[in-house]
This record gives sequence, structure tokens and C-alpha cells, in this order.
Amino acid sequence: MALEIERKFLVRDDRWRALVSRQSRIRQGYLNQAKNCSVRVRSADGHGWLNIKSVTIGARRHEYEYEIPWQDAEEMLDTLCRPPLIEKTRYFVEHQGHLWEIDVFEGDNAGLVVAEIELNHPHEPFVKPPWIGREVTEDPRYYNTCLAQNPYRNWRDQAPAP
Amino acid sequence: MALEIERKFLVRDDRWRALVSRQSRIRQGYLNQAKNCSVRVRSADGHGWLNIKSVTIGARRHEYEYEIPWQDAEEMLDTLCRPPLIEKTRYFVEHQGHLWEIDVFEGDNAGLVVAEIELNHPHEPFVKPPWIGREVTEDPRYYNTCLAQNPYRNWRDQAPAP
Repeated sequence: MALEIERKFLVRDDRWRALVSRQSRIRQGYLNQAKNCSVRVRSADGHGWLNIKSVTIGARRHEYEYEIPWQDAEEMLDTLCRPPLIEKTRYFVEHQGHLWEIDVFEGDNAGLVVAEIELNHPHEPFVKPPWIGREVTEDPRYYNTCLAQNPYRNWRDQAPAP
Repeated sequence: MALEIERKFLVRDDRWRALVSRQSRIRQGYLNQAKNCSVRVRSADGHGWLNIKSVTIGARRHEYEYEIPWQDAEEMLDTLCRPPLIEKTRYFVEHQGHLWEIDVFEGDNAGLVVAEIELNHPHEPFVKPPWIGREVTEDPRYYNTCLAQNPYRNWRDQAPAP
């Protein structure tokens, strides 16, 4: 079991695009609707994963992740996960000793761009790049579990600007 | 992905106990309540597994199973799975070329004994041992997912005798 500490931010502009070190096309979906945990299937770059996370609002969550055959992941996404699936490209950007993951969503979540940083403890200091906007760690609408049920298309007109 | 064909029966008496080749103590629980699939965590004999099954009434189901660290399984059972957990001892009995698994339940399902046989195709012939009772493959009450929500304790008085 890993204790995951993530902080999530909106993105102000495209300056990060010049700094991308690698990128990954991701399809993911959820096998459940339980209140206390999520079970996610992900396929990316010919690999598959199952991910189990306790559901708590905020930055600290218990998380388990296991690699599974890519073909199993694709089958589960196509047959067992409730649509809409989350489809996004994840871009990796190094900034002052930390790795940022910038998710550019597609489909029903097109238009949404979110940057995440993973920390070793909740108060670990980090330097916020100039293209980082408002923090949304505590806002459940930006959880991927929620985006799979209530996609950005449905609520972006009500969202405050980054 | 494996296509699982299982048939499930009640057990008439204890004659099978003399024929047990090995046994295994199982704890299992469920991470979800989705209508179309179940996500099961199991620990047994120092090993752990995640199992994902499509939910269809009857004998044919899609199934995925992955081994995970025993400690992860125990943690998930204790913190993420909804009680009551399923606790049972599984006994393995060979009979005329087929392997029978006899589950003797404990806790809220104490008193329930169920025998399963796994087949390669739905109409594969097999010899029913004399201690096998009524078939319950099509009865969803005997699904382990259902036993975790509506345990035998709650309904055994209404169940017909084997």
C-alpha cells in the first residue's frame, strides 16, 4: 500500500508545451460506484493497470496499483467500464526538481487541462511554475471518477476561470 | 480473459469429508456494488488475489484474476471491503476426473455448504457424486457477492432442503 499525496491545479496557458519530456496516451474507466473506493482500469502505451484508491476528499489517499495484460485492460474498458471513458494525453514536465503531469482531456472532457504534482508528504515545498493556475485538489468535480460520471462538457460553463 | 463455466450444488451429507485431498482457508470481500461486474479481494494461504467478473445469472461469465501481495489483500479486506466479509474453508475433492470445490462457510453464512465444479464448456458431461444435492447455479442468493450482502443467516429458514 502506498499513501499518495497529489496536488492538482488548473493550467493558465500553453507555455508548458515547450518543456515536455515525454507523453502518454491514456484510456481509463471505472469498474465501480462504491462510496469508499474506486477501481480504475487504465491502458497506456501497450500496458494495462488496475488501480484501487480509497475515496477521500483532499490530497491523502490509500492507493494500490497492479500491472495487468494490456489486452485484459482494453477488454474491460470496452465491456465492463461504464461509459463515458476518460481519454486523455498525459504530458510530463520537470520543473525545479519535481515532475508535473499535465492531462489534456478529450471527448466529453475536451477543453479541460489539469496539472498534478506528487509529493512525499503533505507539506513538502515545491516551486509552482508560472503556467500553473488555481489549485483544485479539494474540488471533487476534477476527480477522474467524477469526470467519468459528470464530464467537463456538462459543467465548464459554471467553472471559474483558472 | 477466461470464460468461466461453473455449476454449483448444495451438499446432502458429509461423505465428501473422507475424500478431501487439500483445503484452504479463504477470506474474501467485494470492492464494489456495480450492476454489471464484481471486484473481489481474496486472501488464502499467504497469497492474495484480485478477481473481476462480469455479473450474469447462470453459468457463463467473463473473469479476470490477478495475484497481488497478501498484505495488500488483507489491508483491502480490513479497510475497503464492505462487511460482512465472506469467510470459508474450501475443500478439494477429486471425483471421476473432475475436481470439486466444497465451500464450508463461517460467520454470518455458517451452516451453508456449497460444492462447485468448473467445466470447459456448458454441456461437458460429469459424474455427480452421491453426496451432491440440488443444483443452485441459477439461484443468485448463492452468489458470493449476494452472500456478502444478504448472508445465509438471513434467509436459511426460507430455503428449501437440499
